[in-house]
Amino acid sequence: MKIAGIQGQEKICIEKKALVIMCADNGIVEEQVTQTGQEVTAVVTENFTRGESCACIMAEQAGVHVVPVDIGVAGRLDNCGVRYPLVRRKVACGTRNFRREKAMTRQETEKAILEGIRLAEELKRQGYHLLAVGEMGIGNTTTASAVASVFLGLDPRAVTGRGAGLSDEGLERKIRVIQDGIALHRPDPADAVDVLSKVGGLDLAGLAGIFLGGAICRMPVVLDGVITAAAALAACSLWDHAADYIIASHVSAEPAGRLILERLGLKAAVHGGLCLGEGTGAMAFMPMLSMAAEIYLHMSTFEDIRIEEYRPL
Amino acid sequence: MKIAGIQGQEKICIEKKALVIMCADNGIVEEQVTQTGQEVTAVVTENFTRGESCACIMAEQAGVHVVPVDIGVAGRLDNCGVRYPLVRRKVACGTRNFRREKAMTRQETEKAILEGIRLAEELKRQGYHLLAVGEMGIGNTTTASAVASVFLGLDPRAVTGRGAGLSDEGLERKIRVIQDGIALHRPDPADAVDVLSKVGGLDLAGLAGIFLGGAICRMPVVLDGVITAAAALAACSLWDHAADYIIASHVSAEPAGRLILERLGLKAAVHGGLCLGEGTGAMAFMPMLSMAAEIYLHMSTFEDIRIEEYRPL
Repeated sequence: MKIAGIQGQEKICIEKKALVIMCADNGIVEEQVTQTGQEVTAVVTENFTRGESCACIMAEQAGVHVVPVDIGVAGRLDNCGVRYPLVRRKVACGTRNFRREKAMTRQETEKAILEGIRLAEELKRQGYHLLAVGEMGIGNTTTASAVASVFLGLDPRAVTGRGAGLSDEGLERKIRVIQDGIALHRPDPADAVDVLSKVGGLDLAGLAGIFLGGAICRMPVVLDGVITAAAALAACSLWDHAADYIIASHVSAEPAGRLILERLGLKAAVHGGLCLGEGTGAMAFMPMLSMAAEIYLHMSTFEDIRIEEYRPL
Repeated sequence: MKIAGIQGQEKICIEKKALVIMCADNGIVEEQVTQTGQEVTAVVTENFTRGESCACIMAEQAGVHVVPVDIGVAGRLDNCGVRYPLVRRKVACGTRNFRREKAMTRQETEKAILEGIRLAEELKRQGYHLLAVGEMGIGNTTTASAVASVFLGLDPRAVTGRGAGLSDEGLERKIRVIQDGIALHRPDPADAVDVLSKVGGLDLAGLAGIFLGGAICRMPVVLDGVITAAAALAACSLWDHAADYIIASHVSAEPAGRLILERLGLKAAVHGGLCLGEGTGAMAFMPMLSMAAEIYLHMSTFEDIRIEEYRPL
């Protein structure tokens, strides 16, 4: 079992689990690639802190603690709750519009990655055995598709979907915006910081850091949907062994979802047609993972129950 | 949401859940289509009553009560535990070898179906809101493939798999046995009792009864793998509205799994490559179903959280 390998022990333990939700805004929303305004990022981030969201409801059921992180929300976050305290690691108040200029500086990108690594290490010190990841950021299927397009070497058309439900016209605009951004900046797929800074986002960079930090601390990290998967591509580009510490959960309804999992060599057990993000796909998978761990730890062997080994037939 | 339709109420309730495991033996094992002997059915059935099996470990985690049913185990069941008391509804001590004679009489088949319907009704009276199904019976991927072949109108080769892990040679033998049985009896796909009695089994008949009983009592019934799916085909052949009360869980690794779900018009969210049966696939899905119900019942609307409805874009 992969987790035994990651934790380096036969008796695996995944009792204490956290869902890290990286929240950030994206300048690209200026290009009308989304159906809701940027202000929604802050509202939903605040909702996480009160345990009010699909991901939080699912996390509660799965026995997973939620860690909402402000890695780059544009708005102020003054109405936070205390159920899941906000972790304040704001690197910048959102990114810039990558159709016109680089989304971030290299320095900002590296800072966000480092914040992710540090947070994973902190959670390890707090006794967590396993992390799951999610994100919130209006516009982040656009940045994720751009990043996936560069790393996979595919035309944006092949990796871009409708996000929260764009029309045909909206989808065409989104594809064009990504094509324009990539043509303008020519991000270097061999340099993940270059890719993230030019067409990525602070949430993607922070998530890449979580994957790297998980690998450094030998903590399995459970993927969510397409945005976290794009961040995983970046992490694996920085350090290819990071993939050994990543566990897939579900196959996103976004077209890039399946393609990135294939590239990472991962298989996901949940095919629910989900496209919400926030960590919902990871949470849907979590009870299955707990069941698998229980069976791995407690199942009787054929010998225990006095059954002969299968004879070859 | 399908469950709201089944229960006939907007406020759905799936708090009290049971996993009904139909256990029975199959005369077809004489033909060496399995890797373990018939005695294993009784051993595993007894294990269920002590809560010792993959399905029981998973059910425990999913908050589901296990109901092991002896609908036709050949051996005596003298060493049962008290964790999950055995429901004794033995119709016969296993079936006959369908390569030589009909597996059961019509009367036995109808009795097993009726026992299933009655049990579903009893569980409804005991306050259960939702049932899941599983089975245990050495040789029952052979009977399930035979039944699926008849109802789907496909050659046995297209719907027969390796069960618990047959070799190429074993698989060929299994396909030939099913072809022989179907050629000998010519079961009538329009007459489900005919099909079940000639090439089916007591577990399949009992399960068909559970689906019918669930539909009669407006209780959703969650499918497991290929064997329960073959039984669902029989139930829907007897009463086509039964499909409206069935919820798919996972796609079995057996080839008939996907084909039957397509025929029933059902989609499964779990693609785990499972092929264990017992109800393990249903149990893997159960927490997801609970999460969906929680979200359906408790999620804030856009209005609640002061977000504008999506504008078309």
